Amino acid sequence: MELYGNGGRTGPQGFRLGLEELKRSKQVQPKGTSSSLGTWRDHPVSHGIKALLSPAVSPAAERLRYILGEDDELPNPTLFTEMDTLQHDGDEMEWKESARWIKFEEKVEEGGERWSKPHVSTLSLHSLFELRTCLQTGTVLLDLDGYSLPQIIEDVIEKQIEDGLLKPELREKLSYVLLRKHRHQTKKPIHRSLADIGKSVSSNTGESSGSSRRLVSRSMNDISDTPSTDQLKNKFIKKIPKDAEASNVLVGEVEFLEKPFVAFVRLLQATMLGGVTEVPVPTRFLFILLGPAGKAKSYNEIGRAIATLMVDDLFSDVAYKARDREDLIAGIDEFLDEVIVLPPGEWDPNIRIEPPKKVPSAEKRKSVFSLNEVGQMNGAAGGAGAGGGGGPRWCLPRFCGGLYLDIKRKLPWFPSDFYEGFHIQSISAILFIYLGCITNAITFGGLLGDATDNYQGVMESFLGTAMAGSMFCLFAGQPLIILSSTGPILIFEKLLFDFSKGNGIDYMEFRLWIGLHSALQCLILVATDASFIIKYITRFTEEGFSTLISFIFIYDAIKKMIGAFKYYPINSDFKPDYVTMYKLQILGVWAGNFPFLPCCNLKTPIFSVCPGIPPFPSNAINLTALDWTQLSKKECLKYGGSLVGKSCKFVPDLALMSFILFFGTYSMTLTLKKFKFSRYFPTKLRKLISDFSIFMSILMFVGLDVLFGLNTPKLQVPTDFKPTRVDRGWFVFPFGKNPWWVYLASALPALLVTILIFMDQQITAVIVNRKEHKLRKAAGYHLDLFWVGILMAVCSFMGLPWYVAATVISIAHIDSLKMETETSAPGEQPQFLGVREQRVTGIIVFVLTGISVFLAPILKYIPMPVLYGVFLYMGVASLNGIQFWDRCKLFLMPAKHQPDYVFLRHVPLRRIHLFTLVQIVCLAVLWILKSTVAAIIFPVMILALILVRRLLDFVFSQHDLAWIDNIIPEKEKKKEDDKKKKKKGNKGDSSSDEEFPPPSVIKIPMEPLPAQPRNGGPHCLSRK
Amino acid sequence: MELYGNGGRTGPQGFRLGLEELKRSKQVQPKGTSSSLGTWRDHPVSHGIKALLSPAVSPAAERLRYILGEDDELPNPTLFTEMDTLQHDGDEMEWKESARWIKFEEKVEEGGERWSKPHVSTLSLHSLFELRTCLQTGTVLLDLDGYSLPQIIEDVIEKQIEDGLLKPELREKLSYVLLRKHRHQTKKPIHRSLADIGKSVSSNTGESSGSSRRLVSRSMNDISDTPSTDQLKNKFIKKIPKDAEASNVLVGEVEFLEKPFVAFVRLLQATMLGGVTEVPVPTRFLFILLGPAGKAKSYNEIGRAIATLMVDDLFSDVAYKARDREDLIAGIDEFLDEVIVLPPGEWDPNIRIEPPKKVPSAEKRKSVFSLNEVGQMNGAAGGAGAGGGGGPRWCLPRFCGGLYLDIKRKLPWFPSDFYEGFHIQSISAILFIYLGCITNAITFGGLLGDATDNYQGVMESFLGTAMAGSMFCLFAGQPLIILSSTGPILIFEKLLFDFSKGNGIDYMEFRLWIGLHSALQCLILVATDASFIIKYITRFTEEGFSTLISFIFIYDAIKKMIGAFKYYPINSDFKPDYVTMYKLQILGVWAGNFPFLPCCNLKTPIFSVCPGIPPFPSNAINLTALDWTQLSKKECLKYGGSLVGKSCKFVPDLALMSFILFFGTYSMTLTLKKFKFSRYFPTKLRKLISDFSIFMSILMFVGLDVLFGLNTPKLQVPTDFKPTRVDRGWFVFPFGKNPWWVYLASALPALLVTILIFMDQQITAVIVNRKEHKLRKAAGYHLDLFWVGILMAVCSFMGLPWYVAATVISIAHIDSLKMETETSAPGEQPQFLGVREQRVTGIIVFVLTGISVFLAPILKYIPMPVLYGVFLYMGVASLNGIQFWDRCKLFLMPAKHQPDYVFLRHVPLRRIHLFTLVQIVCLAVLWILKSTVAAIIFPVMILALILVRRLLDFVFSQHDLAWIDNIIPEKEKKKEDDKKKKKKGNKGDSSSDEEFPPPSVIKIPMEPLPAQPRNGGPHCLSRK
Repeated sequence: MELYGNGGRTGPQGFRLGLEELKRSKQVQPKGTSSSLGTWRDHPVSHGIKALLSPAVSPAAERLRYILGEDDELPNPTLFTEMDTLQHDGDEMEWKESARWIKFEEKVEEGGERWSKPHVSTLSLHSLFELRTCLQTGTVLLDLDGYSLPQIIEDVIEKQIEDGLLKPELREKLSYVLLRKHRHQTKKPIHRSLADIGKSVSSNTGESSGSSRRLVSRSMNDISDTPSTDQLKNKFIKKIPKDAEASNVLVGEVEFLEKPFVAFVRLLQATMLGGVTEVPVPTRFLFILLGPAGKAKSYNEIGRAIATLMVDDLFSDVAYKARDREDLIAGIDEFLDEVIVLPPGEWDPNIRIEPPKKVPSAEKRKSVFSLNEVGQMNGAAGGAGAGGGGGPRWCLPRFCGGLYLDIKRKLPWFPSDFYEGFHIQSISAILFIYLGCITNAITFGGLLGDATDNYQGVMESFLGTAMAGSMFCLFAGQPLIILSSTGPILIFEKLLFDFSKGNGIDYMEFRLWIGLHSALQCLILVATDASFIIKYITRFTEEGFSTLISFIFIYDAIKKMIGAFKYYPINSDFKPDYVTMYKLQILGVWAGNFPFLPCCNLKTPIFSVCPGIPPFPSNAINLTALDWTQLSKKECLKYGGSLVGKSCKFVPDLALMSFILFFGTYSMTLTLKKFKFSRYFPTKLRKLISDFSIFMSILMFVGLDVLFGLNTPKLQVPTDFKPTRVDRGWFVFPFGKNPWWVYLASALPALLVTILIFMDQQITAVIVNRKEHKLRKAAGYHLDLFWVGILMAVCSFMGLPWYVAATVISIAHIDSLKMETETSAPGEQPQFLGVREQRVTGIIVFVLTGISVFLAPILKYIPMPVLYGVFLYMGVASLNGIQFWDRCKLFLMPAKHQPDYVFLRHVPLRRIHLFTLVQIVCLAVLWILKSTVAAIIFPVMILALILVRRLLDFVFSQHDLAWIDNIIPEKEKKKEDDKKKKKKGNKGDSSSDEEFPPPSVIKIPMEPLPAQPRNGGPHCLSRK
Repeated sequence: MELYGNGGRTGPQGFRLGLEELKRSKQVQPKGTSSSLGTWRDHPVSHGIKALLSPAVSPAAERLRYILGEDDELPNPTLFTEMDTLQHDGDEMEWKESARWIKFEEKVEEGGERWSKPHVSTLSLHSLFELRTCLQTGTVLLDLDGYSLPQIIEDVIEKQIEDGLLKPELREKLSYVLLRKHRHQTKKPIHRSLADIGKSVSSNTGESSGSSRRLVSRSMNDISDTPSTDQLKNKFIKKIPKDAEASNVLVGEVEFLEKPFVAFVRLLQATMLGGVTEVPVPTRFLFILLGPAGKAKSYNEIGRAIATLMVDDLFSDVAYKARDREDLIAGIDEFLDEVIVLPPGEWDPNIRIEPPKKVPSAEKRKSVFSLNEVGQMNGAAGGAGAGGGGGPRWCLPRFCGGLYLDIKRKLPWFPSDFYEGFHIQSISAILFIYLGCITNAITFGGLLGDATDNYQGVMESFLGTAMAGSMFCLFAGQPLIILSSTGPILIFEKLLFDFSKGNGIDYMEFRLWIGLHSALQCLILVATDASFIIKYITRFTEEGFSTLISFIFIYDAIKKMIGAFKYYPINSDFKPDYVTMYKLQILGVWAGNFPFLPCCNLKTPIFSVCPGIPPFPSNAINLTALDWTQLSKKECLKYGGSLVGKSCKFVPDLALMSFILFFGTYSMTLTLKKFKFSRYFPTKLRKLISDFSIFMSILMFVGLDVLFGLNTPKLQVPTDFKPTRVDRGWFVFPFGKNPWWVYLASALPALLVTILIFMDQQITAVIVNRKEHKLRKAAGYHLDLFWVGILMAVCSFMGLPWYVAATVISIAHIDSLKMETETSAPGEQPQFLGVREQRVTGIIVFVLTGISVFLAPILKYIPMPVLYGVFLYMGVASLNGIQFWDRCKLFLMPAKHQPDYVFLRHVPLRRIHLFTLVQIVCLAVLWILKSTVAAIIFPVMILALILVRRLLDFVFSQHDLAWIDNIIPEKEKKKEDDKKKKKKGNKGDSSSDEEFPPPSVIKIPMEPLPAQPRNGGPHCLSRK
């Protein structure tokens, strides 16, 4: 069933012509030009069938290089392609939309009367070759000055008659066919379904599609010049970029033609052709294929081929710039050159291929033509690129140089940090992080209260969190970081308090001085640009640290949950049958003259009280007078009684209810978060549900808790604004309570605190500033540390806890602010754009934390297990996307089931496993350290982690490390190496350059952004 | 970077030659043969680039038809293709395996030293064309008589020199290169990882791949003739079919060649070529491509192209049968013809495409050539096919004709029904179904006991289930059906018992007579082949019924769960502080002289007892003497006390624990079931976990329950073998208790029972015998009903409940016995093969149910909520795969997110929604009926369902119904219609043929299998 040549009778003119032309083009081509093609022809996909057609040189590529090289113009508009096929209904005809393309193909499902899902167009090689022949033999009108469809069609027919391709007597018939009405696949109203019922009864045995088609108004008017209301109402326009132009493909079969009528038209100006296009978009291209009857399927395939070509980035460029027919042919040849072929035995052509996550960028494909053009013809090639990029330089630290640059870099963003925060997504982020923060504040507040005998309690924790957090978010370099109390600091405070108490030193004053020293040390670190140490923090350290923190979150959440089971033990001895025999039984007294009552029935769940030795013997007589059975548990204990027996501590249902709340919140959050990827409900609603998943599951389980009305442990927020302990105020006076040498000696413990703060802060900052997060506004390590130092001093004076970046909550903050592209073309996958970088969410979170003291009546309904569930979720969620965790999972997977990670393609599995094992051992050691008193040297151990990583350089090859520890590909690495070597000659300080790979995963924070004018002088500190 | 022609200097001989040849073949081809190609060229994928190469006729197809037409031989062996590339390591060379194919491509990941996942080979068009040229210009040796690699290579080189393609002085060098050792990608021992550590330190800056390669022993011996131990130990051989042959592709670049050395060799006999192939498989094909240096990538792509072609079903056939070079070229052309092309802008060639679920079958592709051959050249075309298929015929019922045929059909399978049951999968199926059965037996037993005042209780239920079930599984037509009591029967018994009691009729005797009448009626239905009515049961009725039953399962499970909350209410007033004040308080008496005690504190959780009016006033005096506070709850109630107050009924933790057990079992089963699709652990282990998911989750949650030791409601199995009620025995005597007319009158209620039994039984049977289940052994509707009738009579005599097919458990039975292909080729998806049809599992299940009476000590540990969880799972699981349920989900999905169901492509969404709505309304009505007393007419309502479906014929077109209600495509339907019309002339009974579509979803059960000799005469009853 070829398009041309009906069984050898009408003469295979078309294909003959094509082949002739092919041969001619081959001979015409000069043979000696191959040397100039040397560079781009090394590209693996850039040689195609042209090699067969013309062995020595590729005329197609030559042509394209010529027309695509001139790329100083504006980019071409996006093309929307619509394919309409001619439908016969008895004598009547109309054009019916059958498919459309923005980037991917959407087909009209004939029977289903709906659009198919967008999919990759799978073409047959045959149709592409036939299309090539069509363009070779048909009419090609470039830059036709057309203002309406009738005029354009007249021009085209005229041209065909001129060229002798069409008999003049067919002119009328042809233009009649081409001007038939266009019917588009627009959504039918739902009420039609009832109307259809009646119809289908009458046409019961026949095909229903015919009858339903009749319902559309079919006035045989010509196409109007103005867009119809259907066109204007079509919501699909939203998916098409504003500047888009249309290309219309019309294919069909008619009886009166003996050979195909083919025309490719490019209009000089994109023109609105009335009802031809589904949406009111001006048409630029028109492809018409009308042929003799009997080959509709073949015409259709050719139509699909040209439509697919028109939306191809490269070909559409060619189509816009083509000077003649040959340019278009060259475009097809180039397209065929790059085409991907699937063997018929391994793939079913009926499978619709879903659009891939990522398609090769048009720039890359075009660069084959244009970049080389620049490289060969343009002497100034690469100048702009190299200048803009700004190669990393190593400079001597200047006093406060880093801080100065940080401020200079962040200041221009400051206004946008506010107005960019006003977005619906921020609300969900605020709710999520707020709940995390107050839970953290309460947890650490409670623990600190225990550790310091309430010198710092929940109230201090709230006030400190609110104050430090909001100040940090307002002024720091990286406002996405959330400050919080952290575990190591808690342990330090506990040790400090015990030491002070044991040695008669005033705790608060001592702590103030440590804080001041530490703050000073931090500022010194800032001034000396000491943050350069983060260049040694590679993925190994970074992921080890964040995994550890995630594990601590998960561990704490579960531990607290298990705690509930201990606190409210389950009474498995409860016998409902004995419920009537419950009573208090007085077991006996060891003092006073209370009668001794033995326990009569141990099996019955009797609550027993042993009135103990009263604390004040003078009251002994009163005790005997008490009616113990009338006392409540509290009173009983108050009067020195002690409860004996299993049932005493038992509170029914609480443990299990807590578990249900805990696990329910966790899994509900997980489920709702995943709901984004389900098929139900419109995308926007799903996104909303996913964004508010945590808030919704909290609400749900708070509701459940209220419904059951059980006395589960609730969130208790202090309601009065006053220090937890009565004997302290809001200001700690620095002198008077301790001897003078303490003021100086406190510098030593302060050093430990400084290391701790520094490591905690900077590793978290490195994680937050990860390359993957695509932050635009860059980091501010020095500025961050500066503010941490300042806040530390303030907190010390006010007797509040010290604050430092909290890894897990900060990651949660970033995750909740991620932005994705609003997909325009149907089928295009949303791309991660970056993070909504702003200060608003952080500030509001901490302001809310501050006024939570007044929100207590609402917050008191939130059960603690629900919050533990949120903690668990945070911990688990922050494990996702950690490559270390992915590598751990590999241990459990047989090699053939492992996901296709890039590093698995390049590093042997056993090397990966070894690397992972080293990390696991390191984490285990850290975990053990953390759990013992040695926790105070925890920050030092993280320094040790960096050391371990450096030792790994001797075990693993740089190639392996580049893939596992560093996502930079070998090529880029090489480039950087080269750069380094060039610059090394005139610098003295290059101690460890040779064996250390460039840790390029981490965003280099010390160098000014390319956009900023670089007048910081030669003193800038930058990472090699 | 073309393969031939190095920058125009060495002369583009290769491609020139190719093009010349192309032209020649075009001219040589006769032009008039096109008419004979008419038929197959209508096939949409069967025209390709040949149309361009030779417009009028396709010589490639012509050739292929000639060589592929002769397909009376044995099928060709499977080809295993291995591609080895030449590696240079300094002066040394070796062949290294770089990819392999069985069906899909597996690549050696260079850096990762592992096999990639099997994927669809994506080729470039360029490489295919270059390969074509290679075969045109290179040496093609077909049916070479080779016994060893050196000899073969000598022959090939000799041929090349003869043809003047190779300079004789290169002979030595070439054969040296071609005889280098082959290194295969076999698994490296794990201990090497430690050895590597030392190595990589020394070669720290260099590339590690070079150093690790050096570790392999590299003696430069020739290839041995015998397979090496590495080859023999290679476990990959398991994936290769026994009769497979190898094709080896060797590509590489060498310095000394100026133009490519290409050879394609087919050996006369497949020969083991020593260490060339990874596995000890004899080699049949050899493709060698050695070329000048600098184009390794291009050679590689050509190697991949030929390797992909070799595993293509069609091309491998061509390769086996090719007579000359031209046949091979024709094979490539045909391949190119069918190739699927992806546009470069819409797909990234680096994405590895996972193997599809289903690939187009080779037979279908080959049929283009061979079938037409038969059709045109063979006069006897279609004779065998039509005879074997056996068109369905409509015959008059013969007395017991259906039953006779059923027995005749099933009898040959009887032995295999036993030995095929011995499989590991059966164990999991037995456990699963056993638990379902006893839960069912206990539930229905309990309910029946309530309904009939223990005339039929749990004991009878157990005995009846065991007896009826095992008999049915042993002898029935469809042993996969599981018998059980069902809801409608329960309701009938309840009404019957109430009626008997109200009218002074002896229940057991009355019931016996109803049972006997009903059994008789069933047998009459069997004898008259009345089961033909199932032909009116379409997907509509079938799915409506099974959805209803699933909902009942889910509803009951949840209802029972909520019941636990009512039975063990949660005490939200519990105040742990007042725990000491719990005590019994006597509220007062309405009779006797007991003192009235007012409740002193309503807020304290005091247990109050109101001693009620004693049932026997004579004991009133004794009551006052009682110390009520010493009585247990039971005793208290026994003596006429009544418990007042919230705390009395309260049993702590039980409700929540029950919920956790219930929901835990359900979700754990679901999770474990899904575990089959995870990436962790080897496939076999995952399959095991998935198969035993229900058993494992039951064990897990029974363990949890034991751990907590709470008094959750447990499974209580009767332990003594005696009737539940003392006043009845194991045999009901038919006469003496009721007046004689009752014996006759009972025929009327028996009719209701018969309809009920018949509908329940047959719809379930239809569902079980669904076409999708791919049952080999066919159904036996008549035989099934026969046994149901017989068992009914037996049960009536023994006073046991009546049994009928249980839908949900039967589906669960089938699901647990599903078989899938053991995938051989890597990447091939397992295909559903059918169900393990046997009688063993059913029989064992019911024997186990019988002896469960003795298993009570073990079974008593199973908490009821766990079993309810299993029920919930069964209900939810049986909803899966029901198209109606899929359609219901469509309501919630926006059109663009809907899955690509076939019916959505062909029927407008609003029609589908309308159809679904009708079904939902029907179900709702049925549900309401079921919940009221009208439940007794439930079976009649299912008959009504069939009526509703027939009314839908007037609302929906046959086209729509064919897609929604019937999976048969229009084409096949048409064919069947034609057949029907042909046969209709000579048959009288064809009442409702016109408007009713052939309900072909349902397996036609009445006609004998084609495999059986059909000597049942013209009296067979078959479905139209």
